[in-house]
Amino acid sequence: MCNQFSVINHSIVSEKEALVHVSDLSIQRGYGIFDYFRTVNGKPVFLEAHINRFYQSAKSMHLNTSVHSEELKELIYQLISANNLPNSGIRITLTGGYSPDGYTLADPNLFITQSAFNFNKTNFAKGIKLISYEYARELPLIKTINYLQAIYLQPLIKSKNADDVIYYSNNEILECPRANIFIVTQQNELLTPANGVLKGITRNTILSFNEFGGRETNISLEQLYNAKEVFITSTTKNVLPVLAINDQPIGDGQPGVISSHIYEKLIQLKEV
Amino acid sequence: MCNQFSVINHSIVSEKEALVHVSDLSIQRGYGIFDYFRTVNGKPVFLEAHINRFYQSAKSMHLNTSVHSEELKELIYQLISANNLPNSGIRITLTGGYSPDGYTLADPNLFITQSAFNFNKTNFAKGIKLISYEYARELPLIKTINYLQAIYLQPLIKSKNADDVIYYSNNEILECPRANIFIVTQQNELLTPANGVLKGITRNTILSFNEFGGRETNISLEQLYNAKEVFITSTTKNVLPVLAINDQPIGDGQPGVISSHIYEKLIQLKEV
Repeated sequence: MCNQFSVINHSIVSEKEALVHVSDLSIQRGYGIFDYFRTVNGKPVFLEAHINRFYQSAKSMHLNTSVHSEELKELIYQLISANNLPNSGIRITLTGGYSPDGYTLADPNLFITQSAFNFNKTNFAKGIKLISYEYARELPLIKTINYLQAIYLQPLIKSKNADDVIYYSNNEILECPRANIFIVTQQNELLTPANGVLKGITRNTILSFNEFGGRETNISLEQLYNAKEVFITSTTKNVLPVLAINDQPIGDGQPGVISSHIYEKLIQLKEV
Repeated sequence: MCNQFSVINHSIVSEKEALVHVSDLSIQRGYGIFDYFRTVNGKPVFLEAHINRFYQSAKSMHLNTSVHSEELKELIYQLISANNLPNSGIRITLTGGYSPDGYTLADPNLFITQSAFNFNKTNFAKGIKLISYEYARELPLIKTINYLQAIYLQPLIKSKNADDVIYYSNNEILECPRANIFIVTQQNELLTPANGVLKGITRNTILSFNEFGGRETNISLEQLYNAKEVFITSTTKNVLPVLAINDQPIGDGQPGVISSHIYEKLIQLKEV
């Protein structure tokens, strides 16, 4: 990472200088929010949607940043220009700041970091395996930095030869730690959990594709297992077919037709 | 904070140099554990118990630090000597480290920080007010850095003119964000929640006081409201009487006799 740059608050700094004092509430109390978007051929994808959600998360968590949306966008474009990484992921993080007592909120600290990211088109065909786990995030509608449970579960996921976990609560499915989930029923309905999940930007985009008729509703574990197709969605994954859950195959164990169509449409929209 | 020192991994550094790169998993994913103990007249209080819990938390969270307990103690004593702050709080933090992909665990980073702390003996008589809130921590037995819910609730606590929150789940009380809770029943039984709570060092010490007959059990919200005395316990608070919950007075609304006896015994043990 030579000649790489980041942003701290109002300034562009060298990537090595993107340092936080240990007294920041992110390290003291895991308190912060973030958002993450991609650049494709040097252009940010769905930037407005990510910035809107970033400020919504900040407001929900009582974090009042002095960097306002126009300045934030300006800093992002400066960073893109300085780093010259056409295909990348950009993360905007806002922390609880340097609290005088390590507990009460202070002036937030803003960090913007960029790293190379090339979307891997071969992953779609491979698909993934999930395990199910009973857990609901504490503030699911807010994109907080808390992934404690997700990272804690990594050894379990690995031991089950799975790729990720699907959380559920009261017999209803919710979300993966870093992705939303959709099912296609035997009646070809496209459904995604309505409540208790982060409203992903890719999820929102898919729901806006009128020809697939996607809608939000409650989905039981049983509906998940009996689905014709299951796939997860995120900014980096786009659409990834779920071929098995807890070693039980989904549908015929191959990426499905509707998943493929949505994937193609999404790629076309994002990568052009 | 002039001439103040901290520890990063194996080294003593100036307090200003206690910096973390933004790529650390504590900032990326809220992933880390800590412990906190006090020094009184230059001597650490219950050091062994805190160090044991620190390593238990680390192990539970799959964090393998290269700093082992004898070196950790040596670093703590070096820090105490360098800072010359006889009455203080010392925090040992272990983070998920510099993850190459911002998600998988890496080599942990260790930070030890010290700040002045003088116990305020007048707080006991004033007591505190709590509000109740339905919430259970995700990994309650581990002292993780996740206090997202607690800090998120601060404006609510303030709006209710309360001092802190008592979490409950399935009608059973659990813990405050940074303290355990005890009740004294009308039959003079001393009880503290058995399950789903962090096993505080002060809590353990009080349970070891044979003359009060304290024991762990499930405690309902009703038992809490009908208690003769209620108090919370922590390393910095020792014993703090709870005089009201959700504006409902507890007992006669004054610090109780058993609370006072336990407080005195604890102070004697810790402050001498």
